[in-house]
Amino acid sequence: MAGSSVGQIFRITTWGESHGPALGVVVDGVPAGLPLKEEDIQVFLDRRKPGQSKFTTARAEADRVEILSGVFEGKTTGTPISLLVRNQDQHSKDYSNISEVFRPGHADYTFWEKYGIRDYRGGGRSSGRETIGRVAAGAIACKILQELGISIKTYTKSIGPVEISRIDLDEIDNNRLYMPDAEAAVRAQDYLEECMKDKNSSGGVIQCVVQGMPVGIGEPVFDKLDANLAKAMLSIGAVKGFEMGDGFAAAIGTGAENNDSFAVKDGKVCKETNHAGGVLGGMSDGDSLVFRVAVKPTPSISQKQHTVNVAGEETEIEIHGRHDPVIVPRAVVVVESMAAITIVDALFSNMSARMDALKDFYKKES
Amino acid sequence: MAGSSVGQIFRITTWGESHGPALGVVVDGVPAGLPLKEEDIQVFLDRRKPGQSKFTTARAEADRVEILSGVFEGKTTGTPISLLVRNQDQHSKDYSNISEVFRPGHADYTFWEKYGIRDYRGGGRSSGRETIGRVAAGAIACKILQELGISIKTYTKSIGPVEISRIDLDEIDNNRLYMPDAEAAVRAQDYLEECMKDKNSSGGVIQCVVQGMPVGIGEPVFDKLDANLAKAMLSIGAVKGFEMGDGFAAAIGTGAENNDSFAVKDGKVCKETNHAGGVLGGMSDGDSLVFRVAVKPTPSISQKQHTVNVAGEETEIEIHGRHDPVIVPRAVVVVESMAAITIVDALFSNMSARMDALKDFYKKES
Amino acid sequence: MAGSSVGQIFRITTWGESHGPALGVVVDGVPAGLPLKEEDIQVFLDRRKPGQSKFTTARAEADRVEILSGVFEGKTTGTPISLLVRNQDQHSKDYSNISEVFRPGHADYTFWEKYGIRDYRGGGRSSGRETIGRVAAGAIACKILQELGISIKTYTKSIGPVEISRIDLDEIDNNRLYMPDAEAAVRAQDYLEECMKDKNSSGGVIQCVVQGMPVGIGEPVFDKLDANLAKAMLSIGAVKGFEMGDGFAAAIGTGAENNDSFAVKDGKVCKETNHAGGVLGGMSDGDSLVFRVAVKPTPSISQKQHTVNVAGEETEIEIHGRHDPVIVPRAVVVVESMAAITIVDALFSNMSARMDALKDFYKKES
Amino acid sequence: MAGSSVGQIFRITTWGESHGPALGVVVDGVPAGLPLKEEDIQVFLDRRKPGQSKFTTARAEADRVEILSGVFEGKTTGTPISLLVRNQDQHSKDYSNISEVFRPGHADYTFWEKYGIRDYRGGGRSSGRETIGRVAAGAIACKILQELGISIKTYTKSIGPVEISRIDLDEIDNNRLYMPDAEAAVRAQDYLEECMKDKNSSGGVIQCVVQGMPVGIGEPVFDKLDANLAKAMLSIGAVKGFEMGDGFAAAIGTGAENNDSFAVKDGKVCKETNHAGGVLGGMSDGDSLVFRVAVKPTPSISQKQHTVNVAGEETEIEIHGRHDPVIVPRAVVVVESMAAITIVDALFSNMSARMDALKDFYKKES
Repeated sequence: MAGSSVGQIFRITTWGESHGPALGVVVDGVPAGLPLKEEDIQVFLDRRKPGQSKFTTARAEADRVEILSGVFEGKTTGTPISLLVRNQDQHSKDYSNISEVFRPGHADYTFWEKYGIRDYRGGGRSSGRETIGRVAAGAIACKILQELGISIKTYTKSIGPVEISRIDLDEIDNNRLYMPDAEAAVRAQDYLEECMKDKNSSGGVIQCVVQGMPVGIGEPVFDKLDANLAKAMLSIGAVKGFEMGDGFAAAIGTGAENNDSFAVKDGKVCKETNHAGGVLGGMSDGDSLVFRVAVKPTPSISQKQHTVNVAGEETEIEIHGRHDPVIVPRAVVVVESMAAITIVDALFSNMSARMDALKDFYKKES
Repeated sequence: MAGSSVGQIFRITTWGESHGPALGVVVDGVPAGLPLKEEDIQVFLDRRKPGQSKFTTARAEADRVEILSGVFEGKTTGTPISLLVRNQDQHSKDYSNISEVFRPGHADYTFWEKYGIRDYRGGGRSSGRETIGRVAAGAIACKILQELGISIKTYTKSIGPVEISRIDLDEIDNNRLYMPDAEAAVRAQDYLEECMKDKNSSGGVIQCVVQGMPVGIGEPVFDKLDANLAKAMLSIGAVKGFEMGDGFAAAIGTGAENNDSFAVKDGKVCKETNHAGGVLGGMSDGDSLVFRVAVKPTPSISQKQHTVNVAGEETEIEIHGRHDPVIVPRAVVVVESMAAITIVDALFSNMSARMDALKDFYKKES
Repeated sequence: MAGSSVGQIFRITTWGESHGPALGVVVDGVPAGLPLKEEDIQVFLDRRKPGQSKFTTARAEADRVEILSGVFEGKTTGTPISLLVRNQDQHSKDYSNISEVFRPGHADYTFWEKYGIRDYRGGGRSSGRETIGRVAAGAIACKILQELGISIKTYTKSIGPVEISRIDLDEIDNNRLYMPDAEAAVRAQDYLEECMKDKNSSGGVIQCVVQGMPVGIGEPVFDKLDANLAKAMLSIGAVKGFEMGDGFAAAIGTGAENNDSFAVKDGKVCKETNHAGGVLGGMSDGDSLVFRVAVKPTPSISQKQHTVNVAGEETEIEIHGRHDPVIVPRAVVVVESMAAITIVDALFSNMSARMDALKDFYKKES
Repeated sequence: MAGSSVGQIFRITTWGESHGPALGVVVDGVPAGLPLKEEDIQVFLDRRKPGQSKFTTARAEADRVEILSGVFEGKTTGTPISLLVRNQDQHSKDYSNISEVFRPGHADYTFWEKYGIRDYRGGGRSSGRETIGRVAAGAIACKILQELGISIKTYTKSIGPVEISRIDLDEIDNNRLYMPDAEAAVRAQDYLEECMKDKNSSGGVIQCVVQGMPVGIGEPVFDKLDANLAKAMLSIGAVKGFEMGDGFAAAIGTGAENNDSFAVKDGKVCKETNHAGGVLGGMSDGDSLVFRVAVKPTPSISQKQHTVNVAGEETEIEIHGRHDPVIVPRAVVVVESMAAITIVDALFSNMSARMDALKDFYKKES
């Protein structure tokens, strides 16, 4: 169980290493009849593509996706969709110096101990390139959500100590850090320049907001919507924390502050506040889902670091080559993709929750 | 998929409502030959039992567990272990006034919308009593870990604004808040008294530390150890956030600060610091696992709150009856249980990771 | 992974040994709003109850089922349903002589080797009593199917060499062998009398027919409807074979004989014959599902048999006590239950197969 | 849940249509350190390749496999192995006449009804070409089994009415029907010639024998080894029946005939006969696994057949083009592959069955 699949009904399986021939994903459980073309997926992949700014690696990957199955005459057929992205720029030689040494903050040591073998070229399976499959699948999940009137907005909330002070959704795509605050984006860029000068790197926080959720999505015990979102987020390489709604702030506050009163608006039940982040008892409450993830600083820094080699000897390492000083901007679309994948699966699981809806569903068939 | 199971190889399935006849769990995948008696499980259940202090509900449940299967002559047989706890104290009348009204911060509304029906007596399936099954299963998981030399310590890190300033593990069981800092425990109790006077409640943070982990436990992509821990934690009713190692603090810091250097100690590879919280690339790195969860304040408060009833009309609610002003102390053992359950499953999944170990394993058999 | 669960969305988990305190099942994924009372389940359990004729064991179990969760005011709530049956008649002493010896045709030896420990009292987990959980869950599955207009008829097709020559569904419940042919039932009873005189036992074949299936149920590759039915059937203790439609007879015939022509009847597509047994490409084709299972003879016979004991020495065994000379009649309801469980899960999985139906489903919600 | 994955720990996910760009499989859970090269897989694919005799289709596919991930320097790394086979010979025009008509015995109608859309070119996902992914994965599973001393032999037992009367394993690869009886192979070829003259086709039976199994593999309840084998076999397109050991013959016989006595040979427990087919209580008993599958006749025959079109009108169809008169020979390697995949998964699941073995396993790690 290398654990390369996630989801019960809408299930994705990713594969591929950073320096192997290719990476990809198989997306199973896509409903038939969804219009889908390669361009729909490419748009998502381009959001995570390297080489977009001086804060992202210069690696000149085209990262062109190919649909190998599951689509016929422009529509999904209900069969698994296999998506392939070839690796084109494989500077294997760049990694010769790290093949024998465990990089601090990387999975080199744990891979080595678990498997007794390791594709040391650029991180192998634990490379950021592994997210290509997630994002390609996320593009499909987002298309399904769109058809159901559900939309997702994801953006950078902070980079290092620089936090946004306003949320202007139109601004997100205007700056390369995907911040919804133009002024904060400028300050964050300055901060990143400093980090680079210091041969250092920065972490940050990503926020995701999902609008248009039906009520009751998520299962009440282990498959709570927020539990599966938490898993999806922590499964992203550099993520170290997850908060739903007020998150850790709720732990400091009181019940009177944290409870969201119910009200009626336009004949529909709604909440007056959204400290809960759109879930109650693990099920969506009709309000926006709001969650945040903490992204650690890029572990590959060019400062000299103390470490150990495969022979078990202490040594020093200086990591050169192409490395983003911050993971956050490129992780924005990964967070969005994993959110979409998780929500689609929850929507599908929910369909047999009620006997009356079940009877209606199968009555139409006959 | 009501989602009442978790785990792949070590899999638990919980069932039961707060005011039904009983609650319980089926634990599948327990290795044969583990010594197990009801007392082993009872000890764990007693840690989450109500009525232990004035900050926990006065509900006088005995919560005696019965082993119904899977144990023979004091040892597990490899077959599923069914554990049963009868509900004895069912004050159904207490809940008549909330049967038609959605309590803020509770799952009443989402249950109602998802299922069109609701066991309104005391929260039903989303009651804190649902955790009885988790804790009973957790007792078994902890016994397995103990046999493998892995130990877990879980404690209250903060209650509302009151945070511990020292960690004295021997102190944990000396105060009813399970804080490893006697002085902070006193201040926290004072704070809770205030909350109760104000008809209010408090949140808090729980920290969990796991020692003795082998290296390489967890799968590198979706089934990362921290991803599955995050899911396990967010699946607990009142949990709103999860942090591995430095968590959100890592998002503010730099790579040079956050990377843990490797070193060699007593001939073994180790890390000089543990910002990572004991996982690298989703696999345990041999250091202690360290994570925290944010627990929201008890939503049941006796202040008057604005809400909506099942007829869709706005109304007021005052929640009376037995409610803890803080969930944290009773959730400590739930966090520990879910951690143990997650780790045992990861340990089992890991066994087929290497061809050499696999061959060794089956050579012995023949 | 003791493998005590089956199903993806409608998932059952059974537990319990023949001579432990109790047996039971947790049924997860039951839609909310299904009317359900203990009597609905008891009717099914009574069909597998021992002591109904001289061909079934005299063990005087009441086998009364208790619903412990998931039902409120006579309706399912969507939460897991826990069902419990206490073992009342535990003649542990009967089994003392077999505790050290491996019975031929039983799982004694394999349990012993796999687990290094064994509950030797009456077969433990591999006892026929394990099917109590399956049948209790099957009763719920059948109720769901009934609501959707799907009905199942299961009957004995042959006992040893005695085969039915007509199918009179009204006759099934008139004889204790559940044969739809009164005359064959008499001959089969005579044959069983002979077997008993010879301290021997008999096998037989059970046939199951499901009517009212919508078209397209089952998934096209690994989760074919017939594949999951085959697994469900072979998971029943004594079953050694499975045939869908013509089964092994199809292997002898030709394509022209085996293909079912399509036609139109009452404006609906139908098949002129049903050699396929109601599935094409693993999906239901709207015709009746027809399948058969081969049940081996009861392995517990009172003839002297050659065997080996736990010390690895050859020895003789004579098995006394209460044993049916044929498993078939009591397995009829088990086959029906496992069929229903499998079909319900397939119906639920199918709900997200089409984008148009998905949009319709969630439009109603909003 | 298009159901394109099978296995819990060793899990394969297949994808691809007969006339799309490619087909393939992702194999997850392969232990690290297994020597693997494309040639290992190609050998298996060549066994199912068309165009090998006049009884198999003339379609000139090269079916060259490409390893896209999971292998580094000639060894598996523990990460998912993605295998790709391009479709080269796509005669889409051949299928224009069947795009509007449901072929008897095919999945055309059920696909159409389930998904409302259909890739009508050559069967799409329900084409025999779907088995390419299974066989490629099977090659890897067989390599793992080989390392553990487990070997599989699969052969044609009968074609239509022609059955083998001897088993000469060396003969299997000498004739194109994979029969272990040269004389029967000649008669079977004559029979197939007759079928072809009559524009007809034939079914047949495949037998599989697995040697070297450890005792205790398989889980005692729903994941019985034979239950999972039955599912694996019925998931192959044309398979209509499954028998373990004596199978349906056991249903006719008596307990005295069917029970296998235990004995001791060379200090090891063994069985004097193998009516059980190597499983007792769903767990391997150390004897050879023996099972058979019934394969239906090729449904594509060039005789005129009565059917219905997508407009719901009755019509006639004559199917031309490249179609084997018998599926059996090409299905032999598919049966072997699915058996290997199932057994490997069962071997992995079994590793945590015993506390003593578990402690030994993790003691070595520390």
